Amino acid sequence: MIQQLGLIGCGLMGGSFALALRRAGWVRRVTGYSPSAHTLQRAQALGVIDEAADSAGAAAAGSDLVLLALPVGATGRALAAVREQLAPQAVVMDVGSTKGDVVAAAAQALGDRLGQFVPAHPMAGREVSGVEHAQASLYDGCLVILTPLADTRPQALDLARSLWQALGCRVIDMPPQAHDAAVAAVSHLPHLLAFALMNGLDSQPGAAASLAVAGPGFRDFSRIAASDPVMWRDILLANRQSVLAQSLSFRAALDRLEATLQRGDGPALEALIESARRLRTRWQAGQTGSLTPIGTHGPDGPGGPGATAAS
Amino acid sequence: MIQQLGLIGCGLMGGSFALALRRAGWVRRVTGYSPSAHTLQRAQALGVIDEAADSAGAAAAGSDLVLLALPVGATGRALAAVREQLAPQAVVMDVGSTKGDVVAAAAQALGDRLGQFVPAHPMAGREVSGVEHAQASLYDGCLVILTPLADTRPQALDLARSLWQALGCRVIDMPPQAHDAAVAAVSHLPHLLAFALMNGLDSQPGAAASLAVAGPGFRDFSRIAASDPVMWRDILLANRQSVLAQSLSFRAALDRLEATLQRGDGPALEALIESARRLRTRWQAGQTGSLTPIGTHGPDGPGGPGATAAS
Repeated sequence: MIQQLGLIGCGLMGGSFALALRRAGWVRRVTGYSPSAHTLQRAQALGVIDEAADSAGAAAAGSDLVLLALPVGATGRALAAVREQLAPQAVVMDVGSTKGDVVAAAAQALGDRLGQFVPAHPMAGREVSGVEHAQASLYDGCLVILTPLADTRPQALDLARSLWQALGCRVIDMPPQAHDAAVAAVSHLPHLLAFALMNGLDSQPGAAASLAVAGPGFRDFSRIAASDPVMWRDILLANRQSVLAQSLSFRAALDRLEATLQRGDGPALEALIESARRLRTRWQAGQTGSLTPIGTHGPDGPGGPGATAAS
Repeated sequence: MIQQLGLIGCGLMGGSFALALRRAGWVRRVTGYSPSAHTLQRAQALGVIDEAADSAGAAAAGSDLVLLALPVGATGRALAAVREQLAPQAVVMDVGSTKGDVVAAAAQALGDRLGQFVPAHPMAGREVSGVEHAQASLYDGCLVILTPLADTRPQALDLARSLWQALGCRVIDMPPQAHDAAVAAVSHLPHLLAFALMNGLDSQPGAAASLAVAGPGFRDFSRIAASDPVMWRDILLANRQSVLAQSLSFRAALDRLEATLQRGDGPALEALIESARRLRTRWQAGQTGSLTPIGTHGPDGPGGPGATAAS
């Protein structure tokens, strides 16, 4: 049971965390801080926080759990701001989508308090942002990746695991670098491509006529293009080496597909589509549990190089 | 009321059409043909068709509506096969995702029967295929694009419109070329990119570890990569000029995004993401009817160059 949650950032992710923790009966009181006075007022009105703090440090003071739910580029400043207010047994956790930069910022900002920090990435989100969209169910059934450091206190890590599991999440541990490489491939690159799809359309005189006939395939494919620009600016910049490497691999695959179109090679095109379909179908089957997930050794969790299932 | 529907191709699209027509009470009897004996047997067992025909021509004989639901590359052969069996007042319709090639194939295969043909493209589909997945609700609320020819009989066109509207669809007319250009942008390119995403992943040693952490963003973005390979081979080949042109525009947009990453230009990157988000959000608002759809002059339907709302 958390006596006081200090919420730094009261948007979709942070607000949903507070609501989920309340729903689970795991928190007595939530003190929130946001740089936006309007957000803070809405968070209080919506019952996301009990009390509005006037600084990050004030939200951290007296809290046994401090959650940073900010664009990843703001992590270092926020950690520096809370450091002196942290109780000796308090745990600080983030929910950022990149971990290498967050861990480096934490090492610099927290110094000898680094052991109290647990880097976390819940694989959840929506294409809308802001506390108005916060919901207790956002994290239901999602995967949470923890990337603990050598310095991370075992008790802090245990608390983080227990909390996310109490919210209905599956929790695994990975090194920060393995995390960043993996999410570059399956999250950051898709976002970059979705942004490029919309920008490419936007540059055409026929965009309106095309969008007028767009159907459910387009809807799902482009959904993530509506994501928060500041959040995704920070993520793509923080992980740009991995993202650019993934884009190169994607472009090579696109080249191969286009080459079959250019030479009108039906059998080769069909084979490339078939291999894409096969991998997507295997992944989906692993998700729904009807087949062994790709790269794992059992039915219960994901795995592969760099991933270890948490108990 | 259709006395007899001749269904040529009994997969997801054709099977769902027959089921939807039955649900609407618009058909008395369905005669089906599929080159696969197994499919034909399943279609009968599932109540999709009443009677199995042993050729496309036999399914067309005595039918007042003949529906072709085949990969677009097979359209010409199927039309040639049914031509001699067509009753003088019968209507032939397809559901293919490209229209320029279908119209050309029809002109060649049907000759003086061309007036009986209505080219149609319902903007519906699923990432699964086969008659097992056919469902009466597949076309509920979807957009259907008709691309009538100068030769198309007004009565045939009226029947096609009435039918789709009876199935709960919104129906518009467009010239075949405008159709192909529009769907290249919002359907065919997204499929090509989804195939390339999966193939790019497949080529990496870390694919399993990456896929193990893929979440809902990846699920929706990659859904269409599981589409039917033969159907999409035909579509991409039939519309390859437009698809390649769309891919060029997409690559230019991707170049602009990557350039901001390479030079670490946060403000420029944020602006590009913001413009992608804005277009996607406007489109979504138009879909749900809370704002005027992009490129239209009223609340009731899509429009823009080349599109005219059907009554």
